[in-house]
Amino acid sequence: MTGRIRNRQFASKIVSAEEAAEMIEPGENVGMSGFTGAGYPKEVPGALAKRVATSHEQGRPMKVGLWTGASTAPELDGALAEVEGIYLRLPYQSDPVSRAKINAGRLDYTDIHLSHVAQRVWQGIYGELDLAVVEVSGITSDGHLIPSSSVGNNKTWLEQADRVILEVNSWQSEHLDGMHDIYYGTALPPHRKPIPITHPADRIGVPHLECPAEKVIAVVETESPDRNAAFTPPDRTSEQIAGHVLGFLESEVRNGRLPRELLPLQSGVGNVANAVLAGLGAGPFDGLTAYTEVIQDGMLQLIESGKLQMASATAFSLSPTAVDRFNRDTAAYRDKIVLRPQEISNHPEVVRRLGCLAMNGIVEADIYGNINSTHLMGSRVQNGIGGSGDFARNAYVSIFVTPSQAKNGDVSAIVPMVSHVDHTEHDVDVVVTEQGLADLRGLSPKKRAERIIDRCAHPDFRPLLHDYFQRAQHSSFGLHTPHLLDESLSWHHRFVQHGSMRG
Amino acid sequence: MTGRIRNRQFASKIVSAEEAAEMIEPGENVGMSGFTGAGYPKEVPGALAKRVATSHEQGRPMKVGLWTGASTAPELDGALAEVEGIYLRLPYQSDPVSRAKINAGRLDYTDIHLSHVAQRVWQGIYGELDLAVVEVSGITSDGHLIPSSSVGNNKTWLEQADRVILEVNSWQSEHLDGMHDIYYGTALPPHRKPIPITHPADRIGVPHLECPAEKVIAVVETESPDRNAAFTPPDRTSEQIAGHVLGFLESEVRNGRLPRELLPLQSGVGNVANAVLAGLGAGPFDGLTAYTEVIQDGMLQLIESGKLQMASATAFSLSPTAVDRFNRDTAAYRDKIVLRPQEISNHPEVVRRLGCLAMNGIVEADIYGNINSTHLMGSRVQNGIGGSGDFARNAYVSIFVTPSQAKNGDVSAIVPMVSHVDHTEHDVDVVVTEQGLADLRGLSPKKRAERIIDRCAHPDFRPLLHDYFQRAQHSSFGLHTPHLLDESLSWHHRFVQHGSMRG
Repeated sequence: MTGRIRNRQFASKIVSAEEAAEMIEPGENVGMSGFTGAGYPKEVPGALAKRVATSHEQGRPMKVGLWTGASTAPELDGALAEVEGIYLRLPYQSDPVSRAKINAGRLDYTDIHLSHVAQRVWQGIYGELDLAVVEVSGITSDGHLIPSSSVGNNKTWLEQADRVILEVNSWQSEHLDGMHDIYYGTALPPHRKPIPITHPADRIGVPHLECPAEKVIAVVETESPDRNAAFTPPDRTSEQIAGHVLGFLESEVRNGRLPRELLPLQSGVGNVANAVLAGLGAGPFDGLTAYTEVIQDGMLQLIESGKLQMASATAFSLSPTAVDRFNRDTAAYRDKIVLRPQEISNHPEVVRRLGCLAMNGIVEADIYGNINSTHLMGSRVQNGIGGSGDFARNAYVSIFVTPSQAKNGDVSAIVPMVSHVDHTEHDVDVVVTEQGLADLRGLSPKKRAERIIDRCAHPDFRPLLHDYFQRAQHSSFGLHTPHLLDESLSWHHRFVQHGSMRG
Repeated sequence: MTGRIRNRQFASKIVSAEEAAEMIEPGENVGMSGFTGAGYPKEVPGALAKRVATSHEQGRPMKVGLWTGASTAPELDGALAEVEGIYLRLPYQSDPVSRAKINAGRLDYTDIHLSHVAQRVWQGIYGELDLAVVEVSGITSDGHLIPSSSVGNNKTWLEQADRVILEVNSWQSEHLDGMHDIYYGTALPPHRKPIPITHPADRIGVPHLECPAEKVIAVVETESPDRNAAFTPPDRTSEQIAGHVLGFLESEVRNGRLPRELLPLQSGVGNVANAVLAGLGAGPFDGLTAYTEVIQDGMLQLIESGKLQMASATAFSLSPTAVDRFNRDTAAYRDKIVLRPQEISNHPEVVRRLGCLAMNGIVEADIYGNINSTHLMGSRVQNGIGGSGDFARNAYVSIFVTPSQAKNGDVSAIVPMVSHVDHTEHDVDVVVTEQGLADLRGLSPKKRAERIIDRCAHPDFRPLLHDYFQRAQHSSFGLHTPHLLDESLSWHHRFVQHGSMRG
């Protein structure tokens, strides 16, 4: 047999997306592939959404539990949220429609450390996983599954689900084959063994996913691109933040606290992260490595320039032009990229051992160094914590980056008290804005406050923060972490009432 | 040579505590032994405090940086805080004098995950470690150090300090020799290897601490008991909490989510923890193990009853009667107890691999399952986070326990929003008060709120919490985690103003 499906047993199960969607029952828990817009199923979710809409029109309620690797795309999260076809979403999302439904109280969402998902599903905490819908880039003649542009939780979904629907996407490069490292050595306690990774390049598993053909109830052929957002060149703010981060890394090397080739980089997704990566491309460091979640444009460029020896991740998140480059020449990247299941890419054991340099974006930081990564004004969830906790807690140096202001200056990213905490003061080493960098390591809360206000806050908000901090030191109940409890969240309250944190 | 100091080179350095204290210079960073009132140096700290007092009387300022394993005792923390002889304290304290100075803004304290301390000191984040003052129970003829009743950070202090003062305490049982497992295999990245522990009983190191004799500038002989608090039998509230925890564990076994012998127990210190351990002694579980920080009375009794096969920890924290029993018959416990450095007892890698059942006390929980373990009314630090973060984040099940009220009912332990966050919603599986147990696993924030209010809050505060939650669902900016920002901390503010959270 030729083409992407080279196994007769699997080929005999080819159906349309609509036929496959008919096999999903109301109330079922469905584990879908997909991580940061890569490797999600392209057609079955849309067909399922249509079925849900029809069902709702006929007065028959239909919702499923939707579990993924991380964020997906409008064709998946958007389509299913739009028709209110989801009763519980986990562990991460970033779709505008889905986000709106969650914050309108019409969709239940539970936010989870990405490294926790597999173990919790094995534990049975979210109930049984009835069905998996997983995109692959091919099926080998002996029935192994060639993963596509993300691995995410696919190993777990294929193992745990009672029934499996596969999407075989011929848009994905055939040369992805061999790039993945699927580790089948995890277990529930008391049967766990050390994860034998001591370098980001270590391969400890096999290149293909396993799934007994008996479990596969449908195979759907697709040819659709991932959700690849166009790349916006770094703006001035991102470049300034990147400059501060690079200056810090150089100073750490100078002071003997980091080796010249640094330590494995972990970088969140987005404009600032890309600017830091671009800066590393122009900087003095060679022989870099990455142990991270996502490979985005900046990291691909670092590989191309020879600065980055190799990158370990669980998914791609590339612009259309980068994807074209990558798909034209995938083979050239194959020995420089390893894609792993997210329980390994984010495993605290490995992150701690390798000593990652973690760089993650945030919503806001407070003067004492607590970080809010998820909630606007304490109540409206943005995306979710993702892997930031897995990396920040276990990193060698944990760096958080943000522009000092948002909403045209109506919102300060440095506040008296964060309105939600995702990373506690104990997990935050360095905070960076375009204004400057605050190295908080070793400082008591009040010394942290001085440094964050002076180095990171926007000048428009700095006097207000100083004023709060000074008055808190006179009137606070305790003077370890001085706070005025009737004022500490007043900036957020002001924004909710008047649309601005400004007085 | 006989006695506790069997090596001539070390014996030649014997001096008085006062002479040793004279060797400590103002402004130095001093790493002292001690964890939960066990194994701290008994005489040099007091002599140092006298020297500081004299120095201050003479108008010459004298302070040191004070680093320990965890809490110590009045003779150490209390004495040095009393004379204001500390400029920075880390990583944990529980002394009343020290706490008062910190909250009066007269002593800088930085709160750290106990597993982070060794790595950060190696990194040089707190500056150079000038001096170590470490209690041991003996020195062998070939110059090895026999640890005493806690290990804590002693390995790190002895390695990192330029100069070392040893206290040899002949009050400690000679039979402690052989109970410790000191692992010398840790390193800074990129040189880290897997920690080869796959069972709590695994021994991976050597029984003695190493320290080159050249670094030792003084040896002081002591014969003083540890700070061993009398054991108070569990009160009714603790017994009710313990009952709920035991019921939960039994149900997890019944549902196949835990093995019959459970998983390694981690238990915080205190009355509730002891009540849970007492309950386990009367319960249906056999073949238990513990991988924890501290061995307290309840755990010793579980060993004696044969229910607990063995316990791994970094320190003892026993009542005087339990200490007598232990010291009379130490040899009988030697193959059932392993004392490790705290970088191993609390290592995220090992805690995650073993799948510990973590049980820790708290200050307060909020309706969405965020936990405050450290700060009263958001500003006054109690003790510190200790190892609770190391265990909770990596546990198989993370359980937090507290009475539902404090201060004779003026304070509710369940509040609309915690005033400080030490464990985020992502790390909290189960919350327990004497009122009941809330299993939060897999729930979205609003479902968590219903469960926590209904099962954990004291009936006096329950209607107020329901009222807040209902109104928040109508008026909140976002409805994922509904909050009223001008009210969310009003309970704490009311307590600060009027001495009660009640209206």
